[in-house]
Parts: sequence; structure tokens; C-alpha cells
Amino acid sequence: MTIDLNCDMGESYGRWSLGADEAIMPYITSASIACGYHAGDPHVMRKTIVLALRHGVAIGAHPSLPDLMGFGRRSMAVTPEELKDFCCYQIGALREFCRVAGADLQHVKPHGALYQMAEEDEGLARAIGEAVRESGSELILFTLGTGRYDQACRRLGIRVASEGFADRAYNPDGTLVSRRLPGSLITDPAAAADQAVRLAKEGKLQTLCCHGDTPGAEKIVRAVRQGLENAGIEVRPLRDWLGK
Amino acid sequence: MTIDLNCDMGESYGRWSLGADEAIMPYITSASIACGYHAGDPHVMRKTIVLALRHGVAIGAHPSLPDLMGFGRRSMAVTPEELKDFCCYQIGALREFCRVAGADLQHVKPHGALYQMAEEDEGLARAIGEAVRESGSELILFTLGTGRYDQACRRLGIRVASEGFADRAYNPDGTLVSRRLPGSLITDPAAAADQAVRLAKEGKLQTLCCHGDTPGAEKIVRAVRQGLENAGIEVRPLRDWLGK
Amino acid sequence: MTIDLNCDMGESYGRWSLGADEAIMPYITSASIACGYHAGDPHVMRKTIVLALRHGVAIGAHPSLPDLMGFGRRSMAVTPEELKDFCCYQIGALREFCRVAGADLQHVKPHGALYQMAEEDEGLARAIGEAVRESGSELILFTLGTGRYDQACRRLGIRVASEGFADRAYNPDGTLVSRRLPGSLITDPAAAADQAVRLAKEGKLQTLCCHGDTPGAEKIVRAVRQGLENAGIEVRPLRDWLGK
Amino acid sequence: MTIDLNCDMGESYGRWSLGADEAIMPYITSASIACGYHAGDPHVMRKTIVLALRHGVAIGAHPSLPDLMGFGRRSMAVTPEELKDFCCYQIGALREFCRVAGADLQHVKPHGALYQMAEEDEGLARAIGEAVRESGSELILFTLGTGRYDQACRRLGIRVASEGFADRAYNPDGTLVSRRLPGSLITDPAAAADQAVRLAKEGKLQTLCCHGDTPGAEKIVRAVRQGLENAGIEVRPLRDWLGK
Repeated sequence: MTIDLNCDMGESYGRWSLGADEAIMPYITSASIACGYHAGDPHVMRKTIVLALRHGVAIGAHPSLPDLMGFGRRSMAVTPEELKDFCCYQIGALREFCRVAGADLQHVKPHGALYQMAEEDEGLARAIGEAVRESGSELILFTLGTGRYDQACRRLGIRVASEGFADRAYNPDGTLVSRRLPGSLITDPAAAADQAVRLAKEGKLQTLCCHGDTPGAEKIVRAVRQGLENAGIEVRPLRDWLGK
Repeated sequence: MTIDLNCDMGESYGRWSLGADEAIMPYITSASIACGYHAGDPHVMRKTIVLALRHGVAIGAHPSLPDLMGFGRRSMAVTPEELKDFCCYQIGALREFCRVAGADLQHVKPHGALYQMAEEDEGLARAIGEAVRESGSELILFTLGTGRYDQACRRLGIRVASEGFADRAYNPDGTLVSRRLPGSLITDPAAAADQAVRLAKEGKLQTLCCHGDTPGAEKIVRAVRQGLENAGIEVRPLRDWLGK
Repeated sequence: MTIDLNCDMGESYGRWSLGADEAIMPYITSASIACGYHAGDPHVMRKTIVLALRHGVAIGAHPSLPDLMGFGRRSMAVTPEELKDFCCYQIGALREFCRVAGADLQHVKPHGALYQMAEEDEGLARAIGEAVRESGSELILFTLGTGRYDQACRRLGIRVASEGFADRAYNPDGTLVSRRLPGSLITDPAAAADQAVRLAKEGKLQTLCCHGDTPGAEKIVRAVRQGLENAGIEVRPLRDWLGK
Repeated sequence: MTIDLNCDMGESYGRWSLGADEAIMPYITSASIACGYHAGDPHVMRKTIVLALRHGVAIGAHPSLPDLMGFGRRSMAVTPEELKDFCCYQIGALREFCRVAGADLQHVKPHGALYQMAEEDEGLARAIGEAVRESGSELILFTLGTGRYDQACRRLGIRVASEGFADRAYNPDGTLVSRRLPGSLITDPAAAADQAVRLAKEGKLQTLCCHGDTPGAEKIVRAVRQGLENAGIEVRPLRDWLGK
């Protein structure tokens, strides 16, 4: 039994710091790195890639809606064509920093409102899938494993990693509890670790996420990693084991 | 005798249109395409690449300082490291759109204030050169052929195309007359064509530029192209003939 | 019978020009001026106010969602509180340029997607109304006169001018035909003038809008102005005649 | 002997927090609040004004160059006219939030690179002075009290408060040691308090600044306040005692 453990990284911007990237990177296997639309200026992008490589962590692009002030968390009425263009732009920018660092791009994970929008609108889900497909057949798309469009994305002929969340509460229908509601975030490390082990054991998911900007995120990630390993689950980057 | 003829392209943004890209593209051999920092949203970038390919025009990135309101024409006190990161980001974004269109990236040309800043500050000139070098040994950097750092960039071991301007007036020292001064732009097509032929015949330059946002730009570009061909000068993209 | 004739103005930005402000200003009585979120940099704002004053045109703020790339035309999931803050920021910026020019601010008109969002969500309509109320009891809010929240805004105790569109097609329910559909814009000057006269004669509206960025906008505005006057309808700014 | 104690406030933005505004506000008498160009989204602006009013702190606008990524700390080649327009825009936005909170705007303090640029270029210093003059005769402009243009600004006929820095090292010529050099920031609370008392006793300055984003800023500000009061210097907002 194998699983990937991912976290959003590189969400600082200019004078502003966010997240405990240095503390978290040692415990994860894949990093989803902001590409400038919700966070992550070019310097932060370069630096975060270097940090990931130092820890053998696989790198993914974390494209967003263009909304720095809203941190990409406000949905916007974009067309599928606009969304595809936004993804291409951001994937390319991050891929270039990988390229100059001698690294490959492993995956793409839609950020914030985009992740939910893809779940609510098949046209947008397909636009993201097409952006990934045209960007490279080796790329892996992260989708909500308990959601509606995970299967639709697989039918596009792209590599998909079904994702679960260690530190977010789920609604009974498999969607995530909205961040605007109390209890949407699981901040107790042990509870997050338990949820991670349970999700991994169900065997339907390929990657588990912890959020880097949750208070005490480094403790949660460490607990999740240890919980998974203690349960006999191997934690490795997707590139090492996910079928094409 | 061979020369490349380039023009800035893709400088529209969202609701705003700028330049006569459709009318100009048939007459040039290389297009320097805006990458989002001074102009060129992702949709414009994709569209401009498609247009260039339709006319067999080679594609370059036209990175800028991050200043949409100032169209990249206000110099900024950036560090060499910041500048390298800005270039990497923008080159990557444009390269991805090339990639999905099946095209290669031919060159990089610094935009606006950046072009002058590179001419006035060797550290910044070198930063751009290093950004190009780390981005790919096949990439060609455009530098002011009559300027101070053209030779310095060549010593970095990268491919350099020395550039001249058909439609900009020169100071006696080989620098360009500032856009803030009257007479800085040559708007008479015949005069631009004459300057182009003269510059090409001197044999020191590899590429000539016409600006796409000059009033009547399409007439100027057409006159320059015809003037060059009438003078027996072959007009072809750099990728076809510039040595490595 | 009296009516106000308004147009969106000041929608240029940096290097990009949009609209025929100089040609249109002589024919309108109120100008809704962009405030930097969808268009209108500070220089354009100042210049447009000077132009309005030269023609005795009353000045309004045209606040938008923060989306320069989308020209404020993509709806965004903002909270009422966020929207109130956006309006306050933009109204204040424009008011200051009025202040230094010795002019008063007459009205506020939500721009683009915001105008529709206010029509579809009472909470957002009320947020805009509250922004206007807290900003000054003399301010007039423009609302879709044939729409759902025109009356609700009046109940907030603020001055409201019900607005109609000379150059936009209406759906049978009084909403505007979406810009994404063919025929949404009326581009024939005579047809726009006819619609303007008809709307004015119904006596339910206080202001009529022509769009400044429609092709041939100046001809449409001139035809509408002449049509109204030929029909014996007085065209004057709201500040001169709208009750408090 | 009376002095004003000011601090930069409201420098958070969207998802990013910066500064210890809650902890510092009780100890200062004037707050210079970011206006959106380098930091400070509309929600932060509103909230910071409310916080200032709760502590009886006078409010000022802290306008910047338009450079969110660079936090307004990179100088840019703007014209005096552009700078005047930027100031007017930002002063107006902040003034509106004051207005709806029932507060007056006390002062204007140029932020970051702008502060240095005004010191190095009389045309830009005068542009800021003119922006303040046209914005209102009651407004007070903060200028570097040990610098070159403090007197020139006074000759414009505007109210000027000569400013000193408790927590920044000075060069022998009265300019500030560049932030890029080691030792530019005084981070020892006692040393900052000593410098504050010394500057205040010289009697040439009307306001002293502590930076809100220095590590441990709240301890520095508290020490400075107590140091001043222990030395018998009255600490009160400028509006209460500065002559017109």
C-alpha cells in the first residue's frame, strides 16, 4: 500500500511570508507550488523549487484564478478557454524554474476556488484536464477523489491522482466543508493523522493533502506522515509508482 | 547578405487592443511577444503565437518589468537576481504556449525600460544574459547592436543577435533618442526603409526592429521589408542562419 | 419631461486607449468614470474629470470588481462586506480628483458584472446601497430601472436614479440581454434614439445610458441626444432636478 | 517640549498579515496607513482606521509607488505628474474610509522608495507637496527632517512635520542608511528609545517614526514612548499642537 503526501508550498509574496515551508518540506513527497496568480512571486517560486529538490520532493504547479487580493479563493465566472489559458501560463512559468533547476514537473493541482469550480462545472473540469493534456502526457492532474469529475478527467486520457484531505472536514456527499463554516479545518494533528490513515486504507486515493497555511501545519504534516508509516503505508512521490 | 526583421507583437490586454498584428505579421520574420508583465494576457499570448506560426514567423519572448500601468517603460531599481527571476517567469510562460502549439522559442528581447537598463548597467545586462543561458543554449538574446553591452553578452557564451531600429532615431553615440524627445520615432515609411537598408548594409547587425504600436506601423514594416528585398538583402528568421 | 443622459467614460489605461471620450462628452449630461479596478489609471481619472467639467457634465464614480484583465465583466464571489469596501475605496479615489478640480461627485454606478450581480443578489445590491449611503447623502445610485432591486435600493433611504439603456437589448423580463449573445448591443443610431425616446416617454426612468466603447458610439450618443430633444424631452444632469 | 510618535500601519494584504498593529497602536499618536499600492487592501484600510480611532490615534495616508510585489521599496522612474496622480488617488481612497468612520485625515507620508526619491529629486519632492496642497490646506506632509527638501516643502506653503527615525541608523549627512546595508535597522528597544529622546531634545523635529514591520516592533515602540515620557517630553498627535 503506497500513497503520496502533498502540501501547498511557496505561498509567500514579496514582503509577505506565509506557511512553514522549511519545516514542512522534509515530511511531504509532493509540493504544489504557487505560480504568481494567488501567491508566489518569481523569487519565491525559484527558492521553493530549490527547497523541494533538497528534500527529494516532487514538484507540481498550483495554478489559480488571477486574484492576489483574494488569494484565489473567490470563484470567478471565467470561460473554459480563459481557464485553459491561465493554466498554460502558470504551468509554463513554474516549469521554466524547474527546467533551470534540472527538475521535472510532476503534477498540476488547481488552487482554491478553482478546485471547487472544477468540481461544480464539468466544462471547467475538462478545461483544466485539457490544459494538462496539451502541456505534457507525463503530467499528473490532482482531482477531488471523492468528487464528481475525478472519473471524467480520467476519461480524457490523462494521468489522474485522486486526492483526499487529511486536514479538511468532508460533507457526507464527499465534497469538502466550505472554509467559511466552522470546523472545516481539522487542526488536531492526531485527528488529521487518523483521517489520513483511514483514507489511505480505503485504497481509492493516490495522494493526501495537508494545507501549509493552517496554524500549526508542520505538526499536522509530521503527525500525518508518522501515522501513515506507523500503519505500514509507504509514502512516496507519485512519479515513482503511479501508472501511466 | 541576410537580415532578420522583428516586431513587438501581442501587446493587447483584456479589453484593450494595441498594434496591427494581423497586418504586420506577413512582413516580418521574428515576433517578440509580450508575456503579461507589460502587456499580453494569456489569451493574447496564445492567439499571437498561432498568428505567427500561420505566417512562418519565428517566436521570441519579450519580457518586461512588472508594470502594466506604465507599459514597462518606467525603469525600476530591481536587483540582478530579481531581473533574472522575472525573465525566467515570463520566458517560461511564453515557452509553454509555444510548446502546446508545437513551436520552438527562438529568442528573448528585453522590453521597454529593461532594454535601456541593460544598456546602462552591466550587472543587469549580465542578469538577462544569464537568464537566457540557463533557459536554453539554443535561445538567442537581442541586444542593442550599437551599444555598450552587446559584446559583453557575447562573452557570456550565449547566442546574440545585434539589433538595430528602422523606426527609431539614433544619438551620435549609438544609443536611441529617448521616446520623450520629439523626433525619436521615424514615422515616414521611406525614411525607415532607407535607415533599414543602410543599417543592414553596414553588416554589423543581425536583426532589425520596427515598432508595432507606431501610428501607421504596417506601412512602415511593409516599406522596410520591400526596401530590404529591393536592395538585394535576404530577409529570413535568425533560426535559419545565425551561427551557434 | 426631463431625463439625464449618461455614458461610461475614462476607460483607457496606461498605454491603452478606449472609447471616444472627447467626441462623446459634448452630448451627455452625466459621466460615469472608471476608478482603476477595471480601467482608468490615476492620470486618466484626472484628465477625464477635467474634460467633463469643460462640458458641464456631472461626474459619477464607476466602481468595479478588481479585475483589470477581465475589464470587470467576470462576476466574482465577493462578500457584501468586500463589495462595500471596494466601492468605498474607488468612490474615494475618484472623489479626491473631483475635489482638487473643484467639482462635486454626483452619482455612483456599479460597473460591468457588478451591475448584474446587484440585480441577482439582494445582499450585494444592499451592500452597494450602503456604500453609497455611508459615502454621502447627496450621492445618487444608478440601478437598473426595469430590474428587481431598484425599489429595494430606494427603501434604503438613498437617492436612486432608475436607469435604462439606449443601446442594449432587453429581455422580456426587463433584464439586459447578455453581452455574450448576438444582438445584445444596438449599434444603429436611429434604433438607439428610438429606444431612448420610448423609454423616456414611459416616465419611469431618470437616466439613460449609452456605452462609450461600442463601435461608432459617438454617432449613437449624438443621435440619442438629438432624438430626445426633438421629442421635446429636456436632457439635463440629475443634480439639477432629481428630488432628494 | 512636544513630539508626535508615528508608525506605519495597515500593511497586511488579503491572506497575508504583516505588522503588530493591535499591539503597537496603543503607544503611538499618528498612524500612517497603507493605501493599496504597496500594501493595504480596502478591508485592511477600513479595519486599521477603526483600530486607530479606538486608541485616539490620528490618521495619515501612506501613499506608495504602484508595486505590490516590491512593497513600494524599488524606486521607479515616474514623472512628477504621475507621482501627483498616484498620491491623489491613494489619499482619496484613504480619506473616504476616514470620512465614513467620522474621522479627519491628518497627514500624508510618502512610503518606501518614494520617501528617498523625494529626498533625491526636488521635482518629485515638489510633486508630493503639490499633491498635499491641492488635497487640502489642513493636511500635514511628513518629510525627512535632516534632509534636503524639508525646507523646500515648507516654502510651498503647506504644513510640514519634520520627521526623524527612532529605529533607523543615520548617515553623517542626515540621510538614512540604506535598508540593504547591515545595521540600517536599530532593533534594540533601549537604543531606539535613546535615539528618540536625543532627536526630540534637539527640538528640530515634530514627529518620530518607528517601523511596524521590524521584528519586535511592539517592544521598540513601547520603549520609545516610555523613554520620551520619562524624559519629560509630551507625546501628542500633531493635529493638537502643530501650527498652521
